[in-house]
Amino acid sequence: MPVHRLVVGPSRTGGAPDREGPDDVAVEAPLELRFAGTPATVLLRTPGDDDDLVHGFLLAEGIVRGAADLVHVTRPAGLPPAEAGNVVDVTLVPALADAHLDRGLYSSSSCGACGKRSIASLEVRAAPLAPGPRVPRAVLASLPDRLRAAQPTFARTGGLHACGLFTADGALVALREDVGRHNAVDKVVGWALRAGRVPLAGHVLVVSGRVSFELAQKAVVAGAPVLVAVGAPSSLAIDVARAHGLTLVGFTRPTSCNVYAGPERVGD
Amino acid sequence: MPVHRLVVGPSRTGGAPDREGPDDVAVEAPLELRFAGTPATVLLRTPGDDDDLVHGFLLAEGIVRGAADLVHVTRPAGLPPAEAGNVVDVTLVPALADAHLDRGLYSSSSCGACGKRSIASLEVRAAPLAPGPRVPRAVLASLPDRLRAAQPTFARTGGLHACGLFTADGALVALREDVGRHNAVDKVVGWALRAGRVPLAGHVLVVSGRVSFELAQKAVVAGAPVLVAVGAPSSLAIDVARAHGLTLVGFTRPTSCNVYAGPERVGD
Repeated sequence: MPVHRLVVGPSRTGGAPDREGPDDVAVEAPLELRFAGTPATVLLRTPGDDDDLVHGFLLAEGIVRGAADLVHVTRPAGLPPAEAGNVVDVTLVPALADAHLDRGLYSSSSCGACGKRSIASLEVRAAPLAPGPRVPRAVLASLPDRLRAAQPTFARTGGLHACGLFTADGALVALREDVGRHNAVDKVVGWALRAGRVPLAGHVLVVSGRVSFELAQKAVVAGAPVLVAVGAPSSLAIDVARAHGLTLVGFTRPTSCNVYAGPERVGD
Repeated sequence: MPVHRLVVGPSRTGGAPDREGPDDVAVEAPLELRFAGTPATVLLRTPGDDDDLVHGFLLAEGIVRGAADLVHVTRPAGLPPAEAGNVVDVTLVPALADAHLDRGLYSSSSCGACGKRSIASLEVRAAPLAPGPRVPRAVLASLPDRLRAAQPTFARTGGLHACGLFTADGALVALREDVGRHNAVDKVVGWALRAGRVPLAGHVLVVSGRVSFELAQKAVVAGAPVLVAVGAPSSLAIDVARAHGLTLVGFTRPTSCNVYAGPERVGD
């Protein structure tokens, strides 16, 4: 969205004159999730694809466990202007509502960790990842460029993370952007869940930034066997990947990439 | 920390041969905060400066409000190996424990938003920022390079965010790194709180990445009048800055920078 800003140089004299005018910045706005009308948690996200975000978030949090658990998302009417468009009410299938929604889950967060109360609660619960695919190394090296080429907003604002879902031969299946990297992943995974494609066996998730715990956790829970990052992984992301058999690739460049876990899925 | 990884090129033939060996990655580990022995929340952080982190986090969350509210941080003994070094027990002064620690605060998070239950709870509560300082534009333009020059780990791992506290004439006061950008800010602010320097009137906070809601919120709560980022701001960060009189500078380069709020603090 356009905001007014002043561009200044390092010197009043001898440099370019100051300029003023609109700059295109990434939109960040809160999304309040209510469960059956009760406020539960807030996600700071870039508006758009909110239904995908909600589904991906609830899958990552273990509240929804598969395509059979899709939730009903509605927009409450009569909100004050500041909240219009930024509140969703989620209705779970009754079995889920009974079994999984204690107060602790309500207040958990999209970061995968904050909102959690103890180290023990960080344990990643997920079905084992399927073997395969083999991703040709030339495809791996090309994925960041393919992601960037498909990303409409980043070039304008410099402020959005992207996540792309690709086939093992490098075809783009879905792409989402967000100010929060975990939201971008949740949106892609939520889209896939609603499209009946979860678990994401045979697919590759590609992220534009770094990989910390929560992104590795989200990939594992979604059943994606390969996670490729443009940036660096954290030690805990590598731990999660190795514990769950996730192939984790970082510093992915046209000329080389670093395979931190699961090298058996890197093909010739 | 060193981890084993495989470096592969885009082609088996005609490219550089695969290499294997250690790579230095940023450490991410959970820090479990307990209040009087009860697990309350988990921060995923780079170990080190944990007492600073705890203080900065509690200030940003509104649980601690100033240097008079310093908390007592101890390490429980007899933890299982996976948790050793990653648990702190926080004792608040009794007045704070009584007045501020309801269940909702316990489960709030370092992101400034997740863990919150409603849009209304995002409201930033802080004393008004002091007027000044005037930061010369040449100083502004130099701050990212000064931050990078003082940052020991980034060059090795590419995986750490940095936050630096500077005077208005560009002298470095404190610097902290972390896998989480909000943690890096919390560590600097927490250090300053313990050193009796909060509110940070007259100072400049510099961050290595982008600025979203939570970083603007943390700057305002800490009383820092100027926040300078290497990367892009989000719309909500700009909203917070304008509402609270924070000077917010983004895309800071040696040749120019963008002033999104508070241009009166940019000097000649």
